[in-house]
Amino acid sequence: MSKLGNAGADAGTIAERLAQRIHAFGPGDLTAKARDRALIGIIDTIAVTLAGAREDCVATLRKVPGIGETAGPATLVGLGSRASVLDAALINGTASHALDYDDFSAVFGGHQSVPLVPGLMALAEAEKFDGRAVLTAYSVGVETEIRLARAVHFHHYDKGWHPTATLGTIGAAAAAAHLLRLDPERIATALALAVSQAAGVKANFGTMTKPLHVGLCARAGVMAALLARAGFTASADAFEHPQGFFEVFNGAGTYDPGRIFSSWADPLELEDDGIVVKAYPCCGSTHAAIKAALELRRSAGLKADAIARIEILPHARRLRHTDKARPVTPLEAKFSVQYVVARALLDGSVRLKHFAPGAATEPDVVRLLERTTAAAHPDMAEDAASQWAAEVVVHTADGGRLSHRIDDLTAGGGAVPASPAGMWDKFVDCAEISLPSDAVGALFERLETFESVTDMALLGRMMAGQAEQPKARAKVQAGRFQAGDPTPETSWVP
Amino acid sequence: MSKLGNAGADAGTIAERLAQRIHAFGPGDLTAKARDRALIGIIDTIAVTLAGAREDCVATLRKVPGIGETAGPATLVGLGSRASVLDAALINGTASHALDYDDFSAVFGGHQSVPLVPGLMALAEAEKFDGRAVLTAYSVGVETEIRLARAVHFHHYDKGWHPTATLGTIGAAAAAAHLLRLDPERIATALALAVSQAAGVKANFGTMTKPLHVGLCARAGVMAALLARAGFTASADAFEHPQGFFEVFNGAGTYDPGRIFSSWADPLELEDDGIVVKAYPCCGSTHAAIKAALELRRSAGLKADAIARIEILPHARRLRHTDKARPVTPLEAKFSVQYVVARALLDGSVRLKHFAPGAATEPDVVRLLERTTAAAHPDMAEDAASQWAAEVVVHTADGGRLSHRIDDLTAGGGAVPASPAGMWDKFVDCAEISLPSDAVGALFERLETFESVTDMALLGRMMAGQAEQPKARAKVQAGRFQAGDPTPETSWVP
Repeated sequence: MSKLGNAGADAGTIAERLAQRIHAFGPGDLTAKARDRALIGIIDTIAVTLAGAREDCVATLRKVPGIGETAGPATLVGLGSRASVLDAALINGTASHALDYDDFSAVFGGHQSVPLVPGLMALAEAEKFDGRAVLTAYSVGVETEIRLARAVHFHHYDKGWHPTATLGTIGAAAAAAHLLRLDPERIATALALAVSQAAGVKANFGTMTKPLHVGLCARAGVMAALLARAGFTASADAFEHPQGFFEVFNGAGTYDPGRIFSSWADPLELEDDGIVVKAYPCCGSTHAAIKAALELRRSAGLKADAIARIEILPHARRLRHTDKARPVTPLEAKFSVQYVVARALLDGSVRLKHFAPGAATEPDVVRLLERTTAAAHPDMAEDAASQWAAEVVVHTADGGRLSHRIDDLTAGGGAVPASPAGMWDKFVDCAEISLPSDAVGALFERLETFESVTDMALLGRMMAGQAEQPKARAKVQAGRFQAGDPTPETSWVP
Repeated sequence: MSKLGNAGADAGTIAERLAQRIHAFGPGDLTAKARDRALIGIIDTIAVTLAGAREDCVATLRKVPGIGETAGPATLVGLGSRASVLDAALINGTASHALDYDDFSAVFGGHQSVPLVPGLMALAEAEKFDGRAVLTAYSVGVETEIRLARAVHFHHYDKGWHPTATLGTIGAAAAAAHLLRLDPERIATALALAVSQAAGVKANFGTMTKPLHVGLCARAGVMAALLARAGFTASADAFEHPQGFFEVFNGAGTYDPGRIFSSWADPLELEDDGIVVKAYPCCGSTHAAIKAALELRRSAGLKADAIARIEILPHARRLRHTDKARPVTPLEAKFSVQYVVARALLDGSVRLKHFAPGAATEPDVVRLLERTTAAAHPDMAEDAASQWAAEVVVHTADGGRLSHRIDDLTAGGGAVPASPAGMWDKFVDCAEISLPSDAVGALFERLETFESVTDMALLGRMMAGQAEQPKARAKVQAGRFQAGDPTPETSWVP
């Protein structure tokens, strides 16, 4: 399918061969499925960026003098101001991963969209590239990242590198270089510049530094492409050099560059079903149980006051770190299968507001938690094929027994929405954190037809939101998340 | 000598133990020798930054939109404008290493000053720290960098990491955190943030990306400290974590964290004689021969027209890559022992202008090159103790024979000046690239008493130079470097 399959373009160094493929990539190389997936990836990233923009890590990053202080051509998503392309990539990139709610790929061993979208959107806004160009550049960025992952995994991952950041830097450089329409020589230079900026260790997981990795890699990738365009120099053999990417980051015998090229874009990595969008903003190991509970509530028309007892039966591997009968903090709530199932049955959804401070101890949900038990499923072997499965059983007040079992969840607990329109529930939940409700629908509609966007600055304004002082911002959040917030979903509870 | 020697402060993680030592470090921990060395390191870095500021890599970096475009509190050395602290660290850091003429340490396996000085000067200017605080912060930065190097070398170096960049990022974070007077917990956070930003592979040596490594690490170190001050979080065990600095960058069995602490600051790394200042702006392997030639010229009152023949006899290991009888380009000239010796005998100095385009083919020097030979010294064994030695023999027109031999050159071809005042020749040569001649002396005098500087912004203005457009800049350089430029040194030539 690709213009440069296994046969051609095999002259030169690895960076040069990659650069030839990146340069030759065009919209015509995208299948309908890949185009749909790319669109979902872009919409999902914008959604989680709008949600993450008000997180502490972003506010703290913005306290550093000189970062995002000066007006520029690129929108700071959800923050109501504009900055340089590099600062927008850094800040929006950090926001995009702040909630760890962005899409990911099992083959990549990380999150493939967040290194790409922040920089591409900022560049497109500043230099007037259209939606179609961004979507194509995004697609070749994903191809580059995941093909590289195939060459270095899972040694690269197991060793301690954060692939989203290390491989993401190189993918971001590829995507930005494509968007800027650099010639192959300069694309190769951008890739080599990315090698010298690749960084990020997993020791810093669980801290604000994890999302910062994404902001830094998004910025570094764009900077690599802009430096290459300006005429900067780097070594064309930066990947295979004895002191280059493969030997230094991986080491002899732990990588195979051939896997980058053996089936480049044929099929596209975007068509791989290991790419998944996170459906719920909590631990992936709880997702099958949530899905089963939602299905029960929907199909049986179940009301909370009709529930006498809830039994949750996940695969044993999913339960070990999610067995929390009485969560209190937001983090405990995200890792409590009991809480998220009770929430699903109570509200018919599991959304960001359900992990706000105080949400896990609201009286309505505590009443359900008192009637909830969780245990490893008796009929799911430790080595079962479907290790992400779960069953939920509800005993009703009138003596009935309802149950639903989910076996087909994708590894990691994600789900591939059928279409961009399938993103709506997640999008509105995320976007309302930063945007007024009446702006959310218009933005979503515009994003659904992203490929036809010609004025990226207008789209930027739609994503900008209101600038707020930290104090005012805290007040708004408290209001939004306060316990007992009357919403349609909670109005029917006993 | 240090307040925290081997005994105390051994609670906590490696980052915490390092942070305690960095926090406890004060001006009273500096010996007179260390203070003198620190001052030399700072003056040398400012000198080479003034020289490097007009190199192509800096001009190209500044073409990237958003880098150094907006006015800020920190001086862009030699470039006549001001920018944010982070951009100044990036641009001045790149300039400082553009000529590879900055000081280095054999133990560090790299250049210990350039990761530190650009960020410290920018921070001090923006937040009004005085010269004494900068010199102390610089000293603890050097201590941190080189102690870390002892823990990871030379596997870290041989593997392909660029220690100036990787370890430099951590040293820069330590120095900036000290200058900002962060508490130990935040210093540890800054160090952990630096671990996640450490980057740079040697595959990109020989390109503009090598000096960029320094700019990036200087920026990353300052950013780590500023993020920590703002309340950002990172893992306190980022060094020893199974997916942290030592395991990810080095790997099991190739490092020993104990070497960081076993003799911390006792003695200070700054007192080590492996720290050297480059005396001549060319390949270190030619330095002994240059020194011998200069000594001959000085002691014998030798004039070029009295020279019948020149024999250069370096140690064989030094000659292999410096045996270039007729260099043409600046790069060839930097690696030609014949050219630099002829230049030393002709001009009584080897300076930056001698490596300008056209300098190596000036008639006067070519006449001497026609009478010059080079060969491995017959009495220096391949495994001799002094592998940096060289002898220069001059046969005079009246039948005389003069010779001088240098055996005591420090590894790497550098030399430790006896005092800050010993820096003058190099300083004026470098500073005149960017500053008007009448400003050079005043700046040098101010730097000689750097510890008493209270107004860093005034010092910044003294280093700023004139803003120039690229075109005007090129013209000035051509004028400065043009062949036959009449200078006192060349006025006596035949």
